[in-house]
Amino acid sequence: MSGSVLLLSGGLDSATVAAVLRSRAEHFRAITVNYGQRHARELVAARNIAAETGALEHLVVSLDMSGIGGSALTDRKVEVPDAGGEGIPVTYVPARNTVFLSLALAFAEARDCDSVYIGANAVDYSGYPDCRPEYIEAFNTMASLALKRGVEGRPVVIRAPLIRLSKADIIRMGTEAGAPYALSWSCYRGGKKACGRCDSCRLRLKGFSEAGLEDPVEYENK
Amino acid sequence: MSGSVLLLSGGLDSATVAAVLRSRAEHFRAITVNYGQRHARELVAARNIAAETGALEHLVVSLDMSGIGGSALTDRKVEVPDAGGEGIPVTYVPARNTVFLSLALAFAEARDCDSVYIGANAVDYSGYPDCRPEYIEAFNTMASLALKRGVEGRPVVIRAPLIRLSKADIIRMGTEAGAPYALSWSCYRGGKKACGRCDSCRLRLKGFSEAGLEDPVEYENK
Repeated sequence: MSGSVLLLSGGLDSATVAAVLRSRAEHFRAITVNYGQRHARELVAARNIAAETGALEHLVVSLDMSGIGGSALTDRKVEVPDAGGEGIPVTYVPARNTVFLSLALAFAEARDCDSVYIGANAVDYSGYPDCRPEYIEAFNTMASLALKRGVEGRPVVIRAPLIRLSKADIIRMGTEAGAPYALSWSCYRGGKKACGRCDSCRLRLKGFSEAGLEDPVEYENK
Repeated sequence: MSGSVLLLSGGLDSATVAAVLRSRAEHFRAITVNYGQRHARELVAARNIAAETGALEHLVVSLDMSGIGGSALTDRKVEVPDAGGEGIPVTYVPARNTVFLSLALAFAEARDCDSVYIGANAVDYSGYPDCRPEYIEAFNTMASLALKRGVEGRPVVIRAPLIRLSKADIIRMGTEAGAPYALSWSCYRGGKKACGRCDSCRLRLKGFSEAGLEDPVEYENK
C-alpha cells in the first residue's frame, strides 16, 4: 500500500478531497506550494487541514513565482477585482496547475505513490483553462511518459474527483465526510476575515447557499 | 516580435541552443532553476552564458526540491556514481524536465513569448524518460490546454532542436555558432575541475572526441 499525494491549497476543494480520503481510510501525503501568493493565510489553512485529516506527511515547497509575475495573485501591483468580470480573470496565474501538478508528480514518484489528487473543478469555477477535464487528461498522457515509474509500467495517475461537480455538490460531499471547512481559506485577498466579494468568495458562498448549509468562515460582506 | 524563452541549465546543450539563437539574431529570455542541485556551479555557468549570448533577461527561480528527494543530484546522502551503470541512473530527478518546462511555460506566458526552447536530447544521453521526443510532444498537447494563450489560439510551443542529434553533432553545431563552451559546466559532481568520470562528463568528452574538437573545460581525469 503506497498511498497517494494530495495537492492541498488550504481552500474548500482540497479540504473536501482530504476529508473524503480520510473517510475512506486511504493513506495520503499532502503537498502545498508557497508561491508568494497574496493570500498566505492559505498556507496556515493547509497546515491545519493536513493535521486534522491525518496526512502522513505535509510538504511545503517554496517557489518564488514573483519574478515571473503576470497575475494579481503574485504581483502586488495588480489589484484583486470583485467578482463579475468577463473571460479569464486577472487572478489567473500562468501555468499554475501545471507547475503544482509537476511538483506533486515529483513528490509522488519520490515516495512511490500511485496517484495525485487535485481538487480542481470546472463547473462553478473562475474559468481557468487548467481546471478543465481535457487538461487533466492531457497532463496524464504527458505524465505517463515523463517518469521512471511510467517507463516501468507503473504510472502516477492524476485524479480530479471534483472536476464535474457543482460547488454545492462538493460542499454536500465534504460535509458528509466531515471536512474541516472552518479551517479552510478561499478568499484571494487574505485579510483578517474573508472579503465576500472576490470571485473565490462569491463561488464559495453561492455553493453553501445552494447546498442549504452555513459557511463556518467569517466574512466582511456576505 | 515577442521572442522566446530558453531553459538554460549552464550545461553544454543549453549553451549550444543559446549560441544558435544569438547567431540567428532571435531575441530570447533565459530561465534557470536553482533546485538545490549538487552542482551549483551550473548556476554560475548559466549566468555567464546568458550574459555572453545576449539574453534579454535571465531569471533564476529558486525551488527547494531537497524535501522531495529521490535523486543523487538533490539528496546529499546519495552518491553520484561513475558512468557505466544499467537502466535509468540514480542521477535521475523525478519529473525534473516537467517541473522546469512548467516554470518556463509560466514565464513565457507572463512575458508573451511564443516558444520555449529546451536543450534535451535523446541520442547520447543518460536514458532519462523526460528527454524523449514523445514526451516533448505530449507536453506540448498538455501545454496547449493549460494556458490562457492556448484558449486564445496562441499556444506557447516547446521546441527541442537538439533532440535527435548526437553529442558530436551538437558540439559541431554549437562551435559553428560560437557557443561559449569554456563557460559551460556539465559535471554532476561540481568540484573545482570536472571529474571526467560521471555520466555527464563521459558523454561530453565522447562528443568532443567524436567531433574532433578540444573541450575547453578542465578535467581531473580525461
